[in-house]
Amino acid sequence: MKIKIINPNTTLAMTAKIDECARAVAGEGTLIETVSPAMGPASIESHYDEALSVPGLLAEIMQGERDGVEGYVVACFGDPGLEAAREVAHGPVIGIAEAAMHMGSFLGRSFSVVTTLERSAGRTWELAEKYGMARFCRGVHPCDVAVLDLDTDPDAHKIITETALRAVEADKSDSVLLGCAGMADLCKDISDEIGLPVIDGVAAATVMVESMIRLGLRKSGRGEFATPIPKVYSGILSEFGG
Amino acid sequence: MKIKIINPNTTLAMTAKIDECARAVAGEGTLIETVSPAMGPASIESHYDEALSVPGLLAEIMQGERDGVEGYVVACFGDPGLEAAREVAHGPVIGIAEAAMHMGSFLGRSFSVVTTLERSAGRTWELAEKYGMARFCRGVHPCDVAVLDLDTDPDAHKIITETALRAVEADKSDSVLLGCAGMADLCKDISDEIGLPVIDGVAAATVMVESMIRLGLRKSGRGEFATPIPKVYSGILSEFGG
Amino acid sequence: MKIKIINPNTTLAMTAKIDECARAVAGEGTLIETVSPAMGPASIESHYDEALSVPGLLAEIMQGERDGVEGYVVACFGDPGLEAAREVAHGPVIGIAEAAMHMGSFLGRSFSVVTTLERSAGRTWELAEKYGMARFCRGVHPCDVAVLDLDTDPDAHKIITETALRAVEADKSDSVLLGCAGMADLCKDISDEIGLPVIDGVAAATVMVESMIRLGLRKSGRGEFATPIPKVYSGILSEFGG
Amino acid sequence: MKIKIINPNTTLAMTAKIDECARAVAGEGTLIETVSPAMGPASIESHYDEALSVPGLLAEIMQGERDGVEGYVVACFGDPGLEAAREVAHGPVIGIAEAAMHMGSFLGRSFSVVTTLERSAGRTWELAEKYGMARFCRGVHPCDVAVLDLDTDPDAHKIITETALRAVEADKSDSVLLGCAGMADLCKDISDEIGLPVIDGVAAATVMVESMIRLGLRKSGRGEFATPIPKVYSGILSEFGG
Amino acid sequence: MKIKIINPNTTLAMTAKIDECARAVAGEGTLIETVSPAMGPASIESHYDEALSVPGLLAEIMQGERDGVEGYVVACFGDPGLEAAREVAHGPVIGIAEAAMHMGSFLGRSFSVVTTLERSAGRTWELAEKYGMARFCRGVHPCDVAVLDLDTDPDAHKIITETALRAVEADKSDSVLLGCAGMADLCKDISDEIGLPVIDGVAAATVMVESMIRLGLRKSGRGEFATPIPKVYSGILSEFGG
Amino acid sequence: MKIKIINPNTTLAMTAKIDECARAVAGEGTLIETVSPAMGPASIESHYDEALSVPGLLAEIMQGERDGVEGYVVACFGDPGLEAAREVAHGPVIGIAEAAMHMGSFLGRSFSVVTTLERSAGRTWELAEKYGMARFCRGVHPCDVAVLDLDTDPDAHKIITETALRAVEADKSDSVLLGCAGMADLCKDISDEIGLPVIDGVAAATVMVESMIRLGLRKSGRGEFATPIPKVYSGILSEFGG
Repeated sequence: MKIKIINPNTTLAMTAKIDECARAVAGEGTLIETVSPAMGPASIESHYDEALSVPGLLAEIMQGERDGVEGYVVACFGDPGLEAAREVAHGPVIGIAEAAMHMGSFLGRSFSVVTTLERSAGRTWELAEKYGMARFCRGVHPCDVAVLDLDTDPDAHKIITETALRAVEADKSDSVLLGCAGMADLCKDISDEIGLPVIDGVAAATVMVESMIRLGLRKSGRGEFATPIPKVYSGILSEFGG
Repeated sequence: MKIKIINPNTTLAMTAKIDECARAVAGEGTLIETVSPAMGPASIESHYDEALSVPGLLAEIMQGERDGVEGYVVACFGDPGLEAAREVAHGPVIGIAEAAMHMGSFLGRSFSVVTTLERSAGRTWELAEKYGMARFCRGVHPCDVAVLDLDTDPDAHKIITETALRAVEADKSDSVLLGCAGMADLCKDISDEIGLPVIDGVAAATVMVESMIRLGLRKSGRGEFATPIPKVYSGILSEFGG
Repeated sequence: MKIKIINPNTTLAMTAKIDECARAVAGEGTLIETVSPAMGPASIESHYDEALSVPGLLAEIMQGERDGVEGYVVACFGDPGLEAAREVAHGPVIGIAEAAMHMGSFLGRSFSVVTTLERSAGRTWELAEKYGMARFCRGVHPCDVAVLDLDTDPDAHKIITETALRAVEADKSDSVLLGCAGMADLCKDISDEIGLPVIDGVAAATVMVESMIRLGLRKSGRGEFATPIPKVYSGILSEFGG
Repeated sequence: MKIKIINPNTTLAMTAKIDECARAVAGEGTLIETVSPAMGPASIESHYDEALSVPGLLAEIMQGERDGVEGYVVACFGDPGLEAAREVAHGPVIGIAEAAMHMGSFLGRSFSVVTTLERSAGRTWELAEKYGMARFCRGVHPCDVAVLDLDTDPDAHKIITETALRAVEADKSDSVLLGCAGMADLCKDISDEIGLPVIDGVAAATVMVESMIRLGLRKSGRGEFATPIPKVYSGILSEFGG
Repeated sequence: MKIKIINPNTTLAMTAKIDECARAVAGEGTLIETVSPAMGPASIESHYDEALSVPGLLAEIMQGERDGVEGYVVACFGDPGLEAAREVAHGPVIGIAEAAMHMGSFLGRSFSVVTTLERSAGRTWELAEKYGMARFCRGVHPCDVAVLDLDTDPDAHKIITETALRAVEADKSDSVLLGCAGMADLCKDISDEIGLPVIDGVAAATVMVESMIRLGLRKSGRGEFATPIPKVYSGILSEFGG
Repeated sequence: MKIKIINPNTTLAMTAKIDECARAVAGEGTLIETVSPAMGPASIESHYDEALSVPGLLAEIMQGERDGVEGYVVACFGDPGLEAAREVAHGPVIGIAEAAMHMGSFLGRSFSVVTTLERSAGRTWELAEKYGMARFCRGVHPCDVAVLDLDTDPDAHKIITETALRAVEADKSDSVLLGCAGMADLCKDISDEIGLPVIDGVAAATVMVESMIRLGLRKSGRGEFATPIPKVYSGILSEFGG
C-alpha cells in the first residue's frame, strides 16, 4: 500500500517531521512518501498562502497518480485544495484537519483546537462546519507562535501546552487537536502533560487513508468529484492542462 | 491488538456473518472477537428493541474490560448504547452507523442510506444529526426486508440493490451506506452492481477502531464519559452495580 | 383520567416527593400513580445509569397499559427511554426535560438549566437539540450536588438557589429549569427567592400529559412509533418478548 | 381561572366557532371569553393583514389586564403580535400555531401543516423555525380555500381532508396540524377520516394556557418581555400610549 | 430615481437626522424623501412599540405607491413591518438592520452590533437569524442609552464608542453595526476612533435600494409577497381596506 | 471611482460580455475595468479549475492595488479566491454568487439557481451556506450547457429559460439567479420571459461594490483579513512573494 503525504508548504524540515510522524503510525507494509511541492509558500498562514499552495499540491497529486499512489494526505491544517485533489486522485484524499476533527468526535462530546496565529481561527471554524464537526468544536485557541517558529522558538512546546490547558479549562472539552502539521511531533508529550487525549492530524489522516484503502473505498467516477474535464490552461499554469 | 465486536441482537448466524466481514478487513495481528449478548432481542427493529439490547451489550463491554480488550465495535446500525459503552470502556468504542457515515463523508458531498424497515429511518436521521453527518445524508431508503429475512429471503440481495440504485438516482448522492449489520456481506457485490462506493459499517468501524488503538487514543478520564459512579442496581439488573 | 408517573430510579423517597409535586398540580378527577421500577439504578447520573433504567421503565409502561393508564410521565431529567416508551404506550408519554424545556420556551426567549453533576450537562444539551429547544437554552449549570444528596445535604437548597442566580446572571435568561426530578419540591421557593420563573419538569409534564389526554391526542398507529413487532427476547429480559 | 381567547380578525362567526372549540376542552371552572377586536381585517391572509390585526389584538390584551384575565390565546395560525402581547400581559400568552406545533412534536418525529392559501406557507415555516419546531415540520400544504370560505364552501371539509391525506403521504409524517383557526371544528372528523392524530391549535393553546396558569408560571418582570416603557403614541393610535 | 425613507417613529428630529445621513450617500439624481408616519410611537424600544409603528409605516408606503416612489427604506433597526411593506410596495423595500448586517457580512467573518437597550437584543438576534446573518453576528451589545436620549445625553457619543470598543474586543469581530437609526450621524467618527469599519444601516439601506432600482429588480407579482387580497378593515383602521 | 472586474477564466469573449453587463449598471463616473488573468483555465467547471484560476486572479488584484483600484468583483459564480482576494485588496471585493444570493434574499423568501453543469451544484450549495444564504436557496438546477457553449450553442438561451421555469415551478421560489457569468447578457430577456425577477451576479456585484465604496467601507486592517505576512514563495509562483 502506497500513501503519499503532501506538506503543501515548501519548508523541508517540516516535511521531514511530518514524514516521521506518519511513519510512526503507518501499518506494516505501508509505503509512506512525504513531499513538499516545488512551488508554493514557505508556510501557510493566510488564505493567500493557502490559495498559492494549491497548484503545487495538485501537481504532486497528479505525479502521485502516475506513480500508482493509492491514497493521499494533505498535511496542512487548513486542508488546502482538498476538493480539487479529490477530483484528480482516484484513491482517497484526507486533510489533517478533517481527520483530526473526526477522530476528536469519536472521543467525547467536544474538542478544542490549538492553532498557531489568531488569523487562522476563521478557517478552522469554516472547516469544522463544512465537515459537520462544528457541533463538536468548542473553541479555536491561537498560541501566537508562527508556523516556522514552532521548531526554532525554545518556548514553543511550553506555550502550546499552556494554550492547550487553558483551552480545555475554558471549553470543558474532551480532547485537544493540534492545529498545525508543525506541531505533530509534540502530540504524545502534550497529551501526557495535560492528561487528556491530544490528536495530531498527520497521524490521524495517515491511518484514516490506510483504512479507506484497506476497505477498497474509492470515490464514485461520476458527479461532483469526477475527473475534471480536460481543457486549456494558460500562462505559467499551462502544464496543468489536459 | 484485541478488538471485540458486539452484535447487540442474539441471532448467532448474524454474529457469524459480522465476524467474517470484520476479519476480512482487520489488520494482520489484530484479534477479532465477535459476540452476541446472552440477553436481548433476536433482532433490533424498534426503539424498544434497541433499549432492551443495551444491558446485554454493556455486560459484554464489562467482560471485555476484564479480558483486556482494547477497542469495541457496536454492530447494529442504530448504534445502541454507544455513550454508555464509552463510559464503561477505556479504549475506543465505535458504532457501525457512526463509522459508515464518517467514511461516507470522506467520499464526496453526500451519501444515501439503505435501511431495512421504514420505521428505522427516524433513528438513522437522529444519529446522522448527532454525529454532524446530517449535512451529508441525502436520504434514508427502506427496502422493507426485516432484519432476520435478510438471510432467508431469496430476493433480499436483489431488493437491496434496487433500493440502492433508486436511492442514488433520487438523492444524486456519491455513495451508499448499508443500514444494517445483516447486509455486511453484500457490500462488495452491490458496489460492483451499481458502480458506486458502498460502505458497510462493520468493516468501517473495525478499521476505525484499529486506527484509534494504533494512535493510542483513549477517552479522557474525566467529564461526561468518565467511568460511571458506582451505585446499587436493583432487581435482575443487580449484577451491573458497583 | 389515570396518569402514571415513573421515577426511573429505585429510590422510593424520591418517588414519594415526585408523587407529591405531581398531585399538587393535577386537575381534579385525575388519578396520579407514581412508581419506581423493580429493577434499575438507585439514581441516574450517567449514560450507563440511564441505559439500565430503561428496561424497568418499560416494564412499568407495559403494566400501565394493562391497567388502563391513559398517559405517562418519565420523571428523570435525562428523559430515558422516551421513544421506546412511546412505542409501547398508546396514550401520550412526556419526559420532564421535554416538558420543562417547552414550557420554558413559552416564557421568553431563553432559559437556563440547573443540573446536578457536570457530567449530566452533555445529555441536557442533546435533549435540548432533539426537542428543538437548543435555541432557547442558554446554559446548563451544574450545582455539583449528587442526585441522592439533594435530600440529605443541608446546603442543597442554598447551593441550587445560588447556582440559579449565577445562571440567569451569566445567561441573561428569562427562566430557570430544575434539571432533576429530585429538585421538584424546591421549585416555588427558588422562584420566590430569585424573582424569576422556575420550572419543575415533574409538574410541567403532569399538566402537559393531562392536556393531551383531554384533547384526545394519541400517537398514530403506524410508522416509527407503532407498537414494536413481537419477537423473542433472551436471558433475563425474556419477559419483555411478545 | 379566566382565559381570554382573541380571534384577531373581525369575523364574528369565526369567533363563535373558536369559542365553542375552546370551551369543549377547557377544564371545569375555567372561564373562557372569546372576542374579536373592534378594529382590524375581516380575515388574515397576508403579512399586511397580520400587521393590521395587531393593534386591535393588543387593545384586547390591555382590556383583559384590566379585567383580571390570567392567560390569553392568540387564535390565528400566524400568531400575530405574540411578542408584543407577552410584553403587555402578565400571565401567559400562547399562539395557536405555537401550541399546535409543540403538541405535534410530542406525538412523533414529524408533522404536516394544512394551511389555507399558498401565500401563508412562508409565515408558517418562519414560525416553525422561531419556535424550534422546524425539525418536526415536514411540509406546509395549502388547500387553496380562503379563510372566510372555510364556512361557506360546501367542499371545504372534503378538500381539507384530501389535502391532509396527501400531506401525510408525501411527508410520511406522524400527525397533521390544522393551519387556521377557522378549521378548528373539523379536527375530530378529519382525524377519524384519515386515521391519524389531527391537532387544532385553538384547543391545544387553550389547554396549554390553562396548564401554565395552574403551574403559576408567569413571565419574568425584567428583560425583553418586561412591560413596555410608557411613551407618547400619536394619531389614531394615541390611546395605546402610557 | 425616487426613494422614500420611513422613520417609523414620530420623532421628527430623528427623521431629520436620518434624512441627512441618507442624502450624504445617495447618488446624484436620486430624490430622497424622509418621513415619519402621522401615527405611532415616539420611539421604538419594545415589541409593543414596533407593532404599533407598523400601521403608520404601511400608510406611508401606500402613499409612496401613489406618489411613484421606486424604493423604500425602513429606518428602524428592528425592521418593523418589512414583510407587510414588501407586499404593498412594488419596488424594493430594505430594512436598516437587514442592510447593515449584509454589508457587515461582506467585510469579514463577523460583526458586533451596538444597540440601545438590553431589551432590544432579542429582536436583533431574531433578525440576524431570519436574514441568514446569525453566523456573522458575534454579539449584540446594549449601551443603555434610550433612543430619544441619543441626541440629548452629552455622553451618548462617548458611551457608544466605548461599547463598540468593548464589543470588538470581546467578540474579536471585524466590524461594528450601529443598532439604531438615531446613531447614524456618529458612524464616521466612531469608525475613526476605533479604527475599524462601522456600518450605519440608514446609509447602507439607501445605497442598497438604489442598487436594486438601478438593476430593475422588483418582487415577483405572485406568491407570498403579492399584493394583499383586498378586504374590509374595521374601526380606526378602516382606511387600510381595499 | 475605479472598479476592477476579474473574470477568472482566460476566455476573452466572456470577459467582454461581462464588461458590457457591468458597464450597463455602473453609476455615472464609475470606471469599470474588466480583465482576464494571464494564467488560468479557459473555463471554470470543477474545483480543480477554480483552484488553478486563483493565482491569476490574485495577480490581477495585486496589480489593481498598484493601479489605485477601489473595489473588485470576482466574476465567476464559484467565487474563487474570494477570501485571499480580501486579504490582498484594501477596498471591497465581492463575488458574483455572493452578490446575487444576497440580492435574491431581498426579493422574497427564496430563490432558485440555474447553473451550467450538475457537477457545479455542490459548490453553489457550499457558498450559499457560507454566506448564510442556504435558507433562501431552494434549489440548484443544472441546464447541462458547458460554460463555453453558452455563447455558441444556438439553443442555450432556450434551454436556460426552460430550466429557470422548471426551477421556479419545482421550488416555488420568488426569483432566479443565473449561476454563471457567461449568462449575464440573458438576464433581462429571461426575466421578461418567465415573469419573475432574474438576477445576474455580475450586475449585482458591480452595484454592491460601488455601494460599499460610496459608504467608505473597507476591511479592518487587523485580524483574519489583514494583509498576508510577507514570505518566500518558490518555483513558478515566486513572483507572489513579499
